[in-house]
Amino acid sequence: MPSISEKGRAMPASPIRKLVPYAEEAKRKGRKVYHLNIGQPDIPTPDVALKAIRNFNLRVIEYSHSAGNESYRRKLAEYYQKIGIRVDHTEMLITTGGSEAVLFALMSCVNPGEEVITPEPFYANYNGFATSAGIKVVPVASYIEDDFALPPITEIEKKITPETKGIIICNPNNPTGYLYSKEELLVLRDIVKRHDLFLFSDEVYREFCYDGAEHYSAMNLEGIENNVIMLDSVSKRYSECGVRIGALISKNRDVISTALKFAQARLSPPGLGQVVGEASIDTPQEYFKEVNREYTERRNYMVDTLNNIPGVYCPKPKGAFYTVVKLPVDDADKFAQWLLESFEYKNQTVMVAPASGFYSTPGSGKNEVRIAYVLKIDDLKNAMETLAEALKVYPGRK
Amino acid sequence: MPSISEKGRAMPASPIRKLVPYAEEAKRKGRKVYHLNIGQPDIPTPDVALKAIRNFNLRVIEYSHSAGNESYRRKLAEYYQKIGIRVDHTEMLITTGGSEAVLFALMSCVNPGEEVITPEPFYANYNGFATSAGIKVVPVASYIEDDFALPPITEIEKKITPETKGIIICNPNNPTGYLYSKEELLVLRDIVKRHDLFLFSDEVYREFCYDGAEHYSAMNLEGIENNVIMLDSVSKRYSECGVRIGALISKNRDVISTALKFAQARLSPPGLGQVVGEASIDTPQEYFKEVNREYTERRNYMVDTLNNIPGVYCPKPKGAFYTVVKLPVDDADKFAQWLLESFEYKNQTVMVAPASGFYSTPGSGKNEVRIAYVLKIDDLKNAMETLAEALKVYPGRK
Repeated sequence: MPSISEKGRAMPASPIRKLVPYAEEAKRKGRKVYHLNIGQPDIPTPDVALKAIRNFNLRVIEYSHSAGNESYRRKLAEYYQKIGIRVDHTEMLITTGGSEAVLFALMSCVNPGEEVITPEPFYANYNGFATSAGIKVVPVASYIEDDFALPPITEIEKKITPETKGIIICNPNNPTGYLYSKEELLVLRDIVKRHDLFLFSDEVYREFCYDGAEHYSAMNLEGIENNVIMLDSVSKRYSECGVRIGALISKNRDVISTALKFAQARLSPPGLGQVVGEASIDTPQEYFKEVNREYTERRNYMVDTLNNIPGVYCPKPKGAFYTVVKLPVDDADKFAQWLLESFEYKNQTVMVAPASGFYSTPGSGKNEVRIAYVLKIDDLKNAMETLAEALKVYPGRK
Repeated sequence: MPSISEKGRAMPASPIRKLVPYAEEAKRKGRKVYHLNIGQPDIPTPDVALKAIRNFNLRVIEYSHSAGNESYRRKLAEYYQKIGIRVDHTEMLITTGGSEAVLFALMSCVNPGEEVITPEPFYANYNGFATSAGIKVVPVASYIEDDFALPPITEIEKKITPETKGIIICNPNNPTGYLYSKEELLVLRDIVKRHDLFLFSDEVYREFCYDGAEHYSAMNLEGIENNVIMLDSVSKRYSECGVRIGALISKNRDVISTALKFAQARLSPPGLGQVVGEASIDTPQEYFKEVNREYTERRNYMVDTLNNIPGVYCPKPKGAFYTVVKLPVDDADKFAQWLLESFEYKNQTVMVAPASGFYSTPGSGKNEVRIAYVLKIDDLKNAMETLAEALKVYPGRK
């Protein structure tokens, strides 16, 4: 029997993979499990999008252009222009989710063995795409005490080696919810310029900014237009994660034409998803206001409640719908398993994502978990109450 | 400005990419261009599939399981069992088109620098996926004079080196239309067994077998169950190329669990596509009979007509909807460009895919083109008449 590849063995498993059997077992026992561990919003997909599916009337579901339907790219360019990002339809490729945009960007720009720096904790799947591309993600620590702000320029520059090819940021951030300020982006611009690096900017949570905070896109950083590659997705914006539609956007023509070759090999992005994505651009502004109101309420409730639990510290993030929380526990991996395996409160329990899965520095984030506030406020209340009770009795409490 | 990656530079462009501007220019001039160059069938998608889209009634388009919806996998397993391939829903992953199945299989099984052997000419995008994975496709020549039958065992074994990790076949074949016999598959089995290789079997054209010929799946080869990875897609079977739904199937648990890690990194395959794929399994048998009748008629017409043109040789393939044809021309690349740029007959011309794009051995297939018979018989007649006229006047005729 031939052996599987080294790359296959090196591929990281999903950080919550080992918890899944415990969650299933808890459910089998009739227990209600609140999922605070995933980024699957419960917000309805906009009506215009759902209507587009039901009105689909072609006789043949054909391949689209490898770069995505031109009609969709043109409309997407209009969306970007409206929010102040000046790109046209030739400066983008439609991808199969934001995931493929990250993969194509890394494959197109970074050689096997080379390095990409990212503030840690970071979106765990960057490791998977980096492994696929044979490259290395080099973490630079950010800290919960600073609410996970961008590490100082000196710390970032310490990580730069001759192998460094770029920096990848997620803004607003998954897992921390941190929203980078314009000043922080200017710091990144200076580093990118000085060392001639690519800046991969994952902006899929752009619409999720709270307290009136504004999102500043890396695409608007002057003087590094050829260095910036924006990675985007409709998944969170319109709560349509399942359509698998994303985009890779850059002013750098070499990057677009190179990524197009990867896109041609896989023929085309999903056709029905593009129909949905295109229709979604007409989502009324009211939808976003309502979603923002809803998430703000959830966040405020969650942050306040968590910070009232003795020993817990929860930053108040300005973006996305996650937060990384410090818990008074010995080991968040053990705690997460214990919640599912051994704990119940009113026949309920919660599933959280241990933050260790978002750090690549061993030992980091040991007493932290990522919580996604993607539940309705009543469910969130029950979940928070359950978590508070759990922390009272957890044997590994510190 | 940072440089793009070596891999990006090495990625092959689509074989017809350089012809596209000429085709566009011909259309701008008001010329009718018959597309014999692409594998986009004009056959309608089955009604059950289109109905499933229009009846979509979920409020949130959510991520599916990374391996694909269990309901779909169970139903797909039933489909395979019905056609004599004994697999269950745990022995497969739903992928984003057959393309992703090929990529995941190569990434999971073959190390960068290692080799995969394939009969040449071969599906050009295998090169793209191999480049993405950092591996090498080693061609073993098959010949139009043999109608592109499997090369003799001795020729295949000559290509085996310590770096050889597997063999990839496409059966029925794109681009040649050749259907491998059971005897040929048994030859492959022996080689695979003797050298402990993977056998990657791309069977996306399974339903397209003519003249009563039966398809023999590599999944049914006894004694190499852990070596075989079947790659599949709904694109051609149900004429729904745009849904981007494929599958990776194997009895080898290590391969499935490894490929699942790549699948988890990209979260999930397209959700709407899975709804369509699942519904498509209920396509009535009548649909396939009708499609088969239609393609048989097209093929017979095309093969007879081509072989009646002086200097042309066209095999009569038993599968898929392509054939590689030998033309009396100096250089098929030049001829294909000339057809679009300088020729018209009754204000019509044809676009063909030069076979050079399907060979990696330099100089091979220089006077061959791939023709896809995906046009209605009346269009096909016009296209063949136009091609015959073109060959009469082409300045590079030999």
